[in-house]
Amino acid sequence: MSDRQREKAEAFLRLHQGPATLVLPNAWDVVSARIFEQASFQAIGTTSNAIAASLGYLDGERIPFSEMVAVIERIAQHTDLPVNADIESGYGMDIAAVAGTVRSVIKAGAVGINLEDATRDPAQPLFEPDFQCEKLKAVREVANTLDMPLVINARTDTYLAPFHDPEAQFQETVKRANAYREAGADCIFVPGRLDGELIARLAAAIHAPFNVFATPVTPSIPELNKMGVARLSIGPGAFRAALAGTVKIATELAGQGTYKTLFGEALTKAEVENLLNRASSYSESAAS
Amino acid sequence: MSDRQREKAEAFLRLHQGPATLVLPNAWDVVSARIFEQASFQAIGTTSNAIAASLGYLDGERIPFSEMVAVIERIAQHTDLPVNADIESGYGMDIAAVAGTVRSVIKAGAVGINLEDATRDPAQPLFEPDFQCEKLKAVREVANTLDMPLVINARTDTYLAPFHDPEAQFQETVKRANAYREAGADCIFVPGRLDGELIARLAAAIHAPFNVFATPVTPSIPELNKMGVARLSIGPGAFRAALAGTVKIATELAGQGTYKTLFGEALTKAEVENLLNRASSYSESAAS
Repeated sequence: MSDRQREKAEAFLRLHQGPATLVLPNAWDVVSARIFEQASFQAIGTTSNAIAASLGYLDGERIPFSEMVAVIERIAQHTDLPVNADIESGYGMDIAAVAGTVRSVIKAGAVGINLEDATRDPAQPLFEPDFQCEKLKAVREVANTLDMPLVINARTDTYLAPFHDPEAQFQETVKRANAYREAGADCIFVPGRLDGELIARLAAAIHAPFNVFATPVTPSIPELNKMGVARLSIGPGAFRAALAGTVKIATELAGQGTYKTLFGEALTKAEVENLLNRASSYSESAAS
Repeated sequence: MSDRQREKAEAFLRLHQGPATLVLPNAWDVVSARIFEQASFQAIGTTSNAIAASLGYLDGERIPFSEMVAVIERIAQHTDLPVNADIESGYGMDIAAVAGTVRSVIKAGAVGINLEDATRDPAQPLFEPDFQCEKLKAVREVANTLDMPLVINARTDTYLAPFHDPEAQFQETVKRANAYREAGADCIFVPGRLDGELIARLAAAIHAPFNVFATPVTPSIPELNKMGVARLSIGPGAFRAALAGTVKIATELAGQGTYKTLFGEALTKAEVENLLNRASSYSESAAS
């Protein structure tokens, strides 16, 4: 790997150590990544869900990995910020396949990954923690082989899985989080509709930088920062908001035959060109 | 070409013959195409400008044609509606190259094309009308060779070019439009910020189905219909509106650290899945 990519990975890791909470907006194409870079974020995540949807696939690794990694590479090529690749559960059921996936996304320019412990099998929604730990160790080994200080964000989907007992759910989450950290994860991601109280409890119990997901019940970033949350992701949220805007335009155009929403708020041609023109927007300081 | 594609082209051509004005929303990826299909439009155009931007390219044939046609093909594969491919000036300076481009987009599933007479050379912004007519004849020949009743939308960029005399601009536009029709075009497209009075004058003087571009000064679709306008395109408008929404979300998130615009209006996961699920949304009648 290039020195540049290595340095970017190191800078990305440092952003998890405070004092600010790292906010990772999630891009699905080049122009959304450029918007986030111009808005002064310090790193960008990809969102598998939105990338798949924009290409016509439902979520859950239905998109061929070759198509997913092509978008990750394109985004990484068009931003100077560190890029975190959302690789779902690793696009492969065995550890060797997941290791191959990680090798590909590093070669595509990513400096971090999100790896889930979800199986997509309703009968057993989560991989066994020991198996997931083996996977994380293999991922670290692949990154080391490439001399790449990859930022591994281990995601546990315990709050997306059905649990009857909230306390058991909390304990299972913390157990997995700390095991994944031991296995080599740099950050622990617990997606789900978690309220402030639960986030604070998890942040205190998880011995690692802690990543939460923005939902309508999530406290503001300044509040998350006080709770010790290291990182926030927005997932496909911005993409879904953009789709809602397109639906409104389509509805008005197909209905009344007018253009109020079409021209209500839109970037100009020059603004889009400015977004795409890296030299005009990127400042070296934003990435360091 | 398949019978299905041929029938789609024939149906698309009929939509130019009234009584309604054909509204062609312009898609840049699969999910935007699916939104337009669910909103009951009867055909979809691609927008070269927005496709290029979403992949990181500025407008004006800077995107390699192979990447452009891949997106056109993907959109055509994910909708049952007729797809009109925006191929700018044809991705080639000589007639043989343009013919090759048209062959590729037909093979990618398009049943119509937009072909511009813009050179992208400020010293001489428009191709000579005779040369453009030769190009249109060659395009028709390629389509005939493939046994494909391609809907050729000949675009003249006279209202995007600098003219000192409005009357000369009008006369040049009408002269080109009628020459392009003679050369085999099925529809004439005059983009630009045209007001209602000018649109009505052009519609009366152009002896072909007439396509205008939605701008903030464009009359509503019912009004355009009364003026005899056959077709309306929105170009990259919906895409640019979606980008404006993403900028607002990014600004709030990077500034206040809150999520009001992120969650203000967004499609749900289920709504996105429903969009991508063709079986649930497509009705045969919408395309006929």
